[in-house]
Amino acid sequence: MAFALLAVDPSGARRGRLRTSRGTVETPTFMPCASAGAVKGLSPHEVRGAGIEMILCNTYHLYLRPGHDAIRALGGLHAFTGWHGPILTDSGGFQVFSMAPLRTVTEDAVLFRSHVDGSRHVLSPEKAIAIQQALGADIIMPLDECPPYPIAFEEARDALERTVRWAERSRDVHKGGDQLLFGIVQGGVFPDLRARGARALSRLEFSGYAVGGLSVGESKGEMEAVLRTTLPLLPADRPRYLMGVGTPDDLLRAIPLGVDFFDCVMPTRHGRTGTLFTSRGRLNIKGARYAHDPAPLDPACTCDTCREYSRAYLRHLFVSGEILGLRLNTLHNLHYYGHLMQAARRAIEEGRYAAFQAEVQGRLAGEDSSA
Amino acid sequence: MAFALLAVDPSGARRGRLRTSRGTVETPTFMPCASAGAVKGLSPHEVRGAGIEMILCNTYHLYLRPGHDAIRALGGLHAFTGWHGPILTDSGGFQVFSMAPLRTVTEDAVLFRSHVDGSRHVLSPEKAIAIQQALGADIIMPLDECPPYPIAFEEARDALERTVRWAERSRDVHKGGDQLLFGIVQGGVFPDLRARGARALSRLEFSGYAVGGLSVGESKGEMEAVLRTTLPLLPADRPRYLMGVGTPDDLLRAIPLGVDFFDCVMPTRHGRTGTLFTSRGRLNIKGARYAHDPAPLDPACTCDTCREYSRAYLRHLFVSGEILGLRLNTLHNLHYYGHLMQAARRAIEEGRYAAFQAEVQGRLAGEDSSA
Repeated sequence: MAFALLAVDPSGARRGRLRTSRGTVETPTFMPCASAGAVKGLSPHEVRGAGIEMILCNTYHLYLRPGHDAIRALGGLHAFTGWHGPILTDSGGFQVFSMAPLRTVTEDAVLFRSHVDGSRHVLSPEKAIAIQQALGADIIMPLDECPPYPIAFEEARDALERTVRWAERSRDVHKGGDQLLFGIVQGGVFPDLRARGARALSRLEFSGYAVGGLSVGESKGEMEAVLRTTLPLLPADRPRYLMGVGTPDDLLRAIPLGVDFFDCVMPTRHGRTGTLFTSRGRLNIKGARYAHDPAPLDPACTCDTCREYSRAYLRHLFVSGEILGLRLNTLHNLHYYGHLMQAARRAIEEGRYAAFQAEVQGRLAGEDSSA
Repeated sequence: MAFALLAVDPSGARRGRLRTSRGTVETPTFMPCASAGAVKGLSPHEVRGAGIEMILCNTYHLYLRPGHDAIRALGGLHAFTGWHGPILTDSGGFQVFSMAPLRTVTEDAVLFRSHVDGSRHVLSPEKAIAIQQALGADIIMPLDECPPYPIAFEEARDALERTVRWAERSRDVHKGGDQLLFGIVQGGVFPDLRARGARALSRLEFSGYAVGGLSVGESKGEMEAVLRTTLPLLPADRPRYLMGVGTPDDLLRAIPLGVDFFDCVMPTRHGRTGTLFTSRGRLNIKGARYAHDPAPLDPACTCDTCREYSRAYLRHLFVSGEILGLRLNTLHNLHYYGHLMQAARRAIEEGRYAAFQAEVQGRLAGEDSSA
């Protein structure tokens, strides 16, 4: 087994370890998005230094540009990007359903136009696997249908059933080897559908299980209800991945429900818009109050941005449109997420996750109001 | 004396050393532009790693935003930017004359509007020095009048004479200490005016001398004629600084005429537009020919960009609009300039500058055509 469950905290939080041929990933873990093959603005060395062990690349983006055949010819995604640690690629499903114009879903495949140049493309479950085999990621995902939120029960049911059929087709063409294939549970915010999805996918025996279709507009309560329904129905010895989630608070709440892997654009995207995560909540570096502030962004942080520069300088770079500012902000945010997961892992090992969660959430209490 | 002339090559090329309280600068040297207090996209650590010992910051930009008083309160430009090596600030003259709308020149000062917010400002020679004292650079420059090219003799003469009067006023308010004040020779492409400027400024006894108003559209022959006229009239024991120049070829040609310091936006700006300097000439990374090219940008280069990434990846980052691409390109270009100056210094020490220049120019022969 690639995944080992090392400990379960009284809260339900899981401490695990994924072994891959490209290194070990300690869980719970956060994967930053390297949509086009780069964590925006950062070198692989810096990403690693932020405490990150695994990154996510987007099949949709890389399929369209530069193309999976080009990347295969260049030695695969690891050689291409210079990130030599583990990589997860999504199937492209979420992007096709959220970014591409003029999509049409049939039982066989999704037809869509490229958001880059308007060209027409067909993505089937088999093709999504073939593309990801060419890219060469360590964990790959089957094509799923990602409906919008809100959605009627019947539509969510149809999308779930198709997703399960597509998952089976994906499993049938998956060659295995060093590449692990996860299943994706859909089903909207309907507990019945989520339960059906979890049971159906469990029978297909994937190396891990993802919960998709969340963080699309539903409430925190709805997300929690879905996780409480879904996760207990998945095999306990397989890793669980909550796709596209979320804020630090979201991560802290999902961990005791049994989530091992997270990914989200939040730390990198917020870095570029000047919203920075600190041990005392969020701050927006654009604020005039920071213009003369010689303090580091977060005095409790050990990242290079906090060790080397003042809030005043970071604000100056941001308002002056300097690229270095986006980069330093992103580095800090990623370090925040990387070290939040590190602290969570330690708390789980020591059996004190609930106290840890309460303490961090207490410090973050004002986070949404100050950003 | 802060400056020591260590050797003069048979070609006339000078090998020197500037000692400052913030470290030593080996000359000939190239200073990248950190207009707003950052070499665009790069950390101070990376700039240093590219073989750069001194950077240039723009008084005009920093005066407008965040303001020299703010920077002084934050401990000066070195503490503010995190670049702890030597810094040169220009006087703001060139930017006022090239970027600011609605400027008016009187004998006393220049009136202009900010290109950032349209606010009105007055820059006098005394104020330019006061601003630079607040910023705390190691070398500062007096306000000069920078006329456009081409310009009539009479206008160039008037601008030169005012520049000399302003230089004297600047010197009179300069406090000295660790801050060195250079003089700036103007005079357009008119040898008579350049000679008058050089003689007049030499009498004012500056710590070094700059040649301004070049690389504004004149031919290489005109630039060379100006340098051949001007430099021999300046004190041989003081450093000479050719402002705003230029291409690698420009640097190689100016060094045997006796130039010690250069600055230019070219390596950083070209990095952001994908034009990259290599040992075999320029290449534009946008080119479709690089889409599948696994080779490093310049196989002869030892920078991180060339050690870690392929041309195919750099092209992909560039066409995908990834910030990391701009950063890796800039790092490479700066390394190219830094190491060109390092090689030039070694050639001068070994008395073989002319052969070195011919060899590098031979390799660069196609440079302008391939970009």
